[in-house]
Amino acid sequence: LMPAARTARESIFSVMSRLAAQHGAVNLGQGFPADPPPAFLLEAARGAVGHFDQYSPPAGLPALREALGADLHVNPQDIVVTCGATEALAALALSLYGPGDEVLMLEPVYDVYLPQARLAGATPVTVPMTLDDGGWAVDVNAVQAAVTGRTRALLLNTPHNPTGKVLSAAEQRDLVALARQHDLWIISDEVYDELSFTDEPVGLRSLAPERTFTVGSAGKRLEATGWRVGWVACPAGLAPQVVGVRQLASFCAPTPLQVAGAQALPRARQEGFYAQLREKYRVRKEWMVSGLRALGVTVHEPQGTYFLTAQHPAWDALSLVREGVAVIPGEAFYDQHDCPPGLFRVAFCKSQEDLEEALARLSRLA
Amino acid sequence: LMPAARTARESIFSVMSRLAAQHGAVNLGQGFPADPPPAFLLEAARGAVGHFDQYSPPAGLPALREALGADLHVNPQDIVVTCGATEALAALALSLYGPGDEVLMLEPVYDVYLPQARLAGATPVTVPMTLDDGGWAVDVNAVQAAVTGRTRALLLNTPHNPTGKVLSAAEQRDLVALARQHDLWIISDEVYDELSFTDEPVGLRSLAPERTFTVGSAGKRLEATGWRVGWVACPAGLAPQVVGVRQLASFCAPTPLQVAGAQALPRARQEGFYAQLREKYRVRKEWMVSGLRALGVTVHEPQGTYFLTAQHPAWDALSLVREGVAVIPGEAFYDQHDCPPGLFRVAFCKSQEDLEEALARLSRLA
Ligand SMILES: CSCCC(=O)C(=O)O
Ligand SMILES: CSCCC(=O)C(=O)O
Repeated sequence: LMPAARTARESIFSVMSRLAAQHGAVNLGQGFPADPPPAFLLEAARGAVGHFDQYSPPAGLPALREALGADLHVNPQDIVVTCGATEALAALALSLYGPGDEVLMLEPVYDVYLPQARLAGATPVTVPMTLDDGGWAVDVNAVQAAVTGRTRALLLNTPHNPTGKVLSAAEQRDLVALARQHDLWIISDEVYDELSFTDEPVGLRSLAPERTFTVGSAGKRLEATGWRVGWVACPAGLAPQVVGVRQLASFCAPTPLQVAGAQALPRARQEGFYAQLREKYRVRKEWMVSGLRALGVTVHEPQGTYFLTAQHPAWDALSLVREGVAVIPGEAFYDQHDCPPGLFRVAFCKSQEDLEEALARLSRLA
Repeated sequence: LMPAARTARESIFSVMSRLAAQHGAVNLGQGFPADPPPAFLLEAARGAVGHFDQYSPPAGLPALREALGADLHVNPQDIVVTCGATEALAALALSLYGPGDEVLMLEPVYDVYLPQARLAGATPVTVPMTLDDGGWAVDVNAVQAAVTGRTRALLLNTPHNPTGKVLSAAEQRDLVALARQHDLWIISDEVYDELSFTDEPVGLRSLAPERTFTVGSAGKRLEATGWRVGWVACPAGLAPQVVGVRQLASFCAPTPLQVAGAQALPRARQEGFYAQLREKYRVRKEWMVSGLRALGVTVHEPQGTYFLTAQHPAWDALSLVREGVAVIPGEAFYDQHDCPPGLFRVAFCKSQEDLEEALARLSRLA
């Protein structure tokens, strides 16, 4: 077996979901929402099934590429539809770097970035985000210092999983300047683009359209994480190459669910679905932040996503799940640097009842 | 860009489907059926949407692994569910071989096998199938002669795309003996397992369970090629490693469509759906074989799949599509050996009307 298979480990998200089920724990681990997808998405899918069931083009269903082009303000020809954002990131890794190359990313790091870079033969190099009373920040000088002659790409994520950090306009500008200076590709994972609670702009592509690949997800936007409809917006002219790799990975994304996405994405925008989603999660975030703080937990309030990071010196995720609350251990997001002590991630995209029950269970430990 | 992206070419199936649309041609190119999936599959999917919309485990939904285990007579723990058979093949390539390795396959070859092996860094080595009045056959001695110290795997396909050849029991036995002798993995692409018109057994896994990975597809079995639900049955104990790679590729297969598959696969078996499917395509095959022969075309009658290969010295696929009939040029299936002159592939999984119209248009050229 090859190294990718030999060293394969079950994803921490699957592990914790399994443990949660096993221990009857409230699952604040894996990032999937408790609420169902909006009715207009479900109706569209039920209507598409039985009518759009065969292969679609590897680049994506034309109607979906059109809808995404309009939504993202990019040329539909630059869009590549994938089986979820995970496949988008995999196809980019296999397209953009290989043996001997280095890829820069920030730590804490979404766990799949590291093995995907290694699968492509490249070396992931991480730069730690800083953490102080002001919350999580990016030290652009430290990123600059990590660039070598072998660095090929800067893999960013805003809003950021697990911290919920949204890159500030200044950080975006400085990171883009650095990428230009060293001629690096930028891969910007923006699957939580509609879940920013700040006024900072999300979207690095507009700053550096010539080098930025933006990854997005209908699953995250429309609360259907199991539907496997993601995308990449590529620099002009590069989509055919990315399609070439992605067609080897899975040929095409699920056709009836793409049809549903093509109908639902414009509607979500028109009907203010994202604003409602943001408000829903803003309320749950506030509630969870204050609930945890009341228990003496140090909470790093997120600016986006449906995750928050927090620290408690006496808690660890494996004990917590046995006590009935599943969270993700901070260590799962660290590979090359030390995890801040007692760090864990809480997903608050769960029901109000589950959040309350989790806090009640945690209060017995505090 | 990396070689996989730089050398990427649009799949011949997409190219011909696009040309077919452009020229208003009857599309006997890409292998997707004209008929809709069975009602019991569609109902199951409509019922699943809205209830099973979030991530499922990377190995596959437990209910689907159970259903597949029962259907294939393998341990459900050995099953890995993927985003279609293409992803199954990609995950196996990335799991089983790498730089310096050679992978043996037969030519004509299903086009994705070659770039997938190269994506993994390996070298595909093809052995030509023989073609005479008795039809397509495998020269096991030629396969034997192609084995080197670097050969890692034998990638087989039965029933075979594009020829429709079903490996005979003797060929299977000899190929398995060869794999054992040289300690090769066997990857057996059996997506047309329910579409064999002969009594030869399909299924290499039973002959060499310790080394055979069997690839299958709900899309091919249930006439829903765009649904992206495929699988691999692995040798005992190896599924976790394949899952490790496949979770980097797309995390999981579409959850609501997996639920539908879990319900529909046992029902398809119980209700005799596959026998009906076989009979439907047997009739269309007979019809197409005699129709083409009546036009003076040399037809190599298939023993399985919904494809046939044929030869006509004066026809080529690019002219045919302009004349209103899309087929796949034989050359698309040849990489290292000469394509028999005038070879093309016809997909007869299309409507009776389309097949008749295609024959009418071809008769004007004959
Ligand atoms: C693809 S499983 C993980 C889902 C997710 O985004 C998370 O929990 O961080
Ligand atoms: C994945 S597109 C090609 C479909 C197919 O199996 C064929 O036409 O050979």
